[in-house]
Amino acid sequence: MKTTMALSKQAARGTRSIVPVTCITLLTDFGAQDVFVGILRGVILSIAPEARIVDLTHLIPPQDVRQGARALARAAPYFPAGTIHLAVVDPDVGSARRPLGARLGPHFFVGPDNGLVTLLVRRAQRTQESCDFVHLDRREYWLNEVSHIFHGRDIFAPVAAHLARGVLLADLGSPVSDPVLLEFAEPQVTARGLRGEVTSIDHFGNVLTNIEPEHLGELRILRVRIGEVEILGLARTFGERPPGELLALWSSDGHLCLAEANGNAARRLGARPGEAVEVFTGPHGSTEAL
Amino acid sequence: MKTTMALSKQAARGTRSIVPVTCITLLTDFGAQDVFVGILRGVILSIAPEARIVDLTHLIPPQDVRQGARALARAAPYFPAGTIHLAVVDPDVGSARRPLGARLGPHFFVGPDNGLVTLLVRRAQRTQESCDFVHLDRREYWLNEVSHIFHGRDIFAPVAAHLARGVLLADLGSPVSDPVLLEFAEPQVTARGLRGEVTSIDHFGNVLTNIEPEHLGELRILRVRIGEVEILGLARTFGERPPGELLALWSSDGHLCLAEANGNAARRLGARPGEAVEVFTGPHGSTEAL
Amino acid sequence: MKTTMALSKQAARGTRSIVPVTCITLLTDFGAQDVFVGILRGVILSIAPEARIVDLTHLIPPQDVRQGARALARAAPYFPAGTIHLAVVDPDVGSARRPLGARLGPHFFVGPDNGLVTLLVRRAQRTQESCDFVHLDRREYWLNEVSHIFHGRDIFAPVAAHLARGVLLADLGSPVSDPVLLEFAEPQVTARGLRGEVTSIDHFGNVLTNIEPEHLGELRILRVRIGEVEILGLARTFGERPPGELLALWSSDGHLCLAEANGNAARRLGARPGEAVEVFTGPHGSTEAL
Repeated sequence: MKTTMALSKQAARGTRSIVPVTCITLLTDFGAQDVFVGILRGVILSIAPEARIVDLTHLIPPQDVRQGARALARAAPYFPAGTIHLAVVDPDVGSARRPLGARLGPHFFVGPDNGLVTLLVRRAQRTQESCDFVHLDRREYWLNEVSHIFHGRDIFAPVAAHLARGVLLADLGSPVSDPVLLEFAEPQVTARGLRGEVTSIDHFGNVLTNIEPEHLGELRILRVRIGEVEILGLARTFGERPPGELLALWSSDGHLCLAEANGNAARRLGARPGEAVEVFTGPHGSTEAL
Repeated sequence: MKTTMALSKQAARGTRSIVPVTCITLLTDFGAQDVFVGILRGVILSIAPEARIVDLTHLIPPQDVRQGARALARAAPYFPAGTIHLAVVDPDVGSARRPLGARLGPHFFVGPDNGLVTLLVRRAQRTQESCDFVHLDRREYWLNEVSHIFHGRDIFAPVAAHLARGVLLADLGSPVSDPVLLEFAEPQVTARGLRGEVTSIDHFGNVLTNIEPEHLGELRILRVRIGEVEILGLARTFGERPPGELLALWSSDGHLCLAEANGNAARRLGARPGEAVEVFTGPHGSTEAL
Repeated sequence: MKTTMALSKQAARGTRSIVPVTCITLLTDFGAQDVFVGILRGVILSIAPEARIVDLTHLIPPQDVRQGARALARAAPYFPAGTIHLAVVDPDVGSARRPLGARLGPHFFVGPDNGLVTLLVRRAQRTQESCDFVHLDRREYWLNEVSHIFHGRDIFAPVAAHLARGVLLADLGSPVSDPVLLEFAEPQVTARGLRGEVTSIDHFGNVLTNIEPEHLGELRILRVRIGEVEILGLARTFGERPPGELLALWSSDGHLCLAEANGNAARRLGARPGEAVEVFTGPHGSTEAL
């Protein structure tokens, strides 16, 4: 990705001890009202005082591992090589689900083994970067007391901090080759185009879908339909239509997105994750009578 | 507490000048929409550019000193020795209430003298760590102009920053021995167990109470009643019951907590802070017919 | 302003290369639920790993450039000389609006040229500090790929990071002298005082207006009227009236503010930005029968 630097030799060996400032990103469903995230920060800084803690978001919908995986995949590529992504959306905390550490190309992941890492693994596979996984089972890198309900504090934050201090990934747990990977719905080809779905709604009310340019092949988008509403053609940016008009465009991470110029498309459309979105396609240069 | 290191000699003398990176935590009721917290950060960094600023939360309910005290006590133990906790929930700003600085074992506190520090003081007393208090009355460590309504900016942030830079606590104000300490309701023993109360609701809708394991003595929890609802036995973690089922368990900071597996117990129960929670106890090994 | 240190020689020349830790503040309308702000942080840290990133707020109402300008002007003076303010409220992203870099006395600004910088420019003019503006048109300081919809990520964050690393402002773009500056409504003199308006509502429900002490000249405030409600006299602080009573006072940034003691004035008054606020004035020492 654009801003990711070449993998350093240290990072390639799974250690971070030479990199001067290590970023640890935090992504959780913990919300902002409680001190849960503050506690993660305290645990990290008690072990790795020099670590750079960077919030991605803490408003993943509670227990929604898929939204967590999407958000993580969206943000991670913009961080420096060697960054450690600490992600905790953990509905099965305290069960038999494993705590997972991973190296995915130039980045590290620490969190529950429930599929949060799925889209980072797929990207690494596409770019032919190697991935290593460990079952975090070395208790000497955890807090002394481990609860059944807050592994973010008791296992993941201390492990991420030790990784930031230069402990090798391989020393944090036993190698595994079968991390949990989730299936994400792919758009289906239809007689006249594609049928995808809404994946999420952003803060501005933009409606994001799972349709990407690569799904179009040599074709182009003529119309987009969601519910009873149809949107003609693709815009390049929000301000290209008069305020209040709906438009379709490619989002900043390359997904088909429905928006309202200076407005809130999701509220207007009543759109929800999982809802169908149909795309009608045609060859470049073609038009279509409606 | 688990992650708190032994008190350094410098911290013991009330100075922090040798510690390489000083954490200043922020806990307020300022919310996220305004730039109030940003202003605190700017004031601190103008005086102590090397300080490490760490947010605990800024969503304490407005003017709710008790919730502030609970949140502070919950997070503080996870921070390194020498950390300065800057806490501002300050309904009486501009009145005669004193600005307070304190050393509580290995940590420092800066904020209004209204009881925010209560639970940190009690913990230090339980662990037999010494506490020092000063009335922050040395204006040379404040901003030049002091408003009647924003002492977080004008007094507390600059004082915390000077403390981070190595100014001795004793130089920031006059010693006092009578900080405001609040009473927090303790569970009452009943004929069949304990009667406690709801203290707060977390982001996930978990209902936290003031009942701790130490209140049980040699007994165990058989049933928990809130309103018209009864929950049988104690679970170890959220996923131990089928989704949608209510359960009682010990929270990550050791309080009795009512939760709904993968759901929102507070919404389901309509629970609110102050509401009564009854616990029916029995000897270990016993069962009870309902 | 109070906490702003004298302009260093380096800052005066438009470079920041000697200052040991550079603050980059972030002010956006991106909200907290998505990873947009996290992406800005990643881009900055990939280019300037040593930069200090400080959030002002990310809850500016979507596309509300005026509220963004007010919030930026309120917080900026409390930051050290050399601070870079990265502000993105950008309804016209992808249009012909220019990306703007500026030096405004001791501070730097990076963001869209849509008036966000207005109140910082006015302050610099009042204090007779020089201002320089550049049209950010040097693509070598942007990300390689630039979208039409997320210039915060693709242009502003990388430019701010390069500025933090010591690139001269003059090297980031072509000089311009006509930045977009917005008009902000000023209070009008009336027969019996002033007529101003509500500018914003803060987290506590305090109602802020555009009326400042300088508008009063030699007079003092006798009464304030909003809608059907009148408030007598000025208080110094919130607690000066019994809980539940409305009061008028000067806000922490010197604007007339309507508050409810330990309550939420905006909710009680139904106040909204743009609503008229009337002030009745008289000479000091006078009283007025109602």
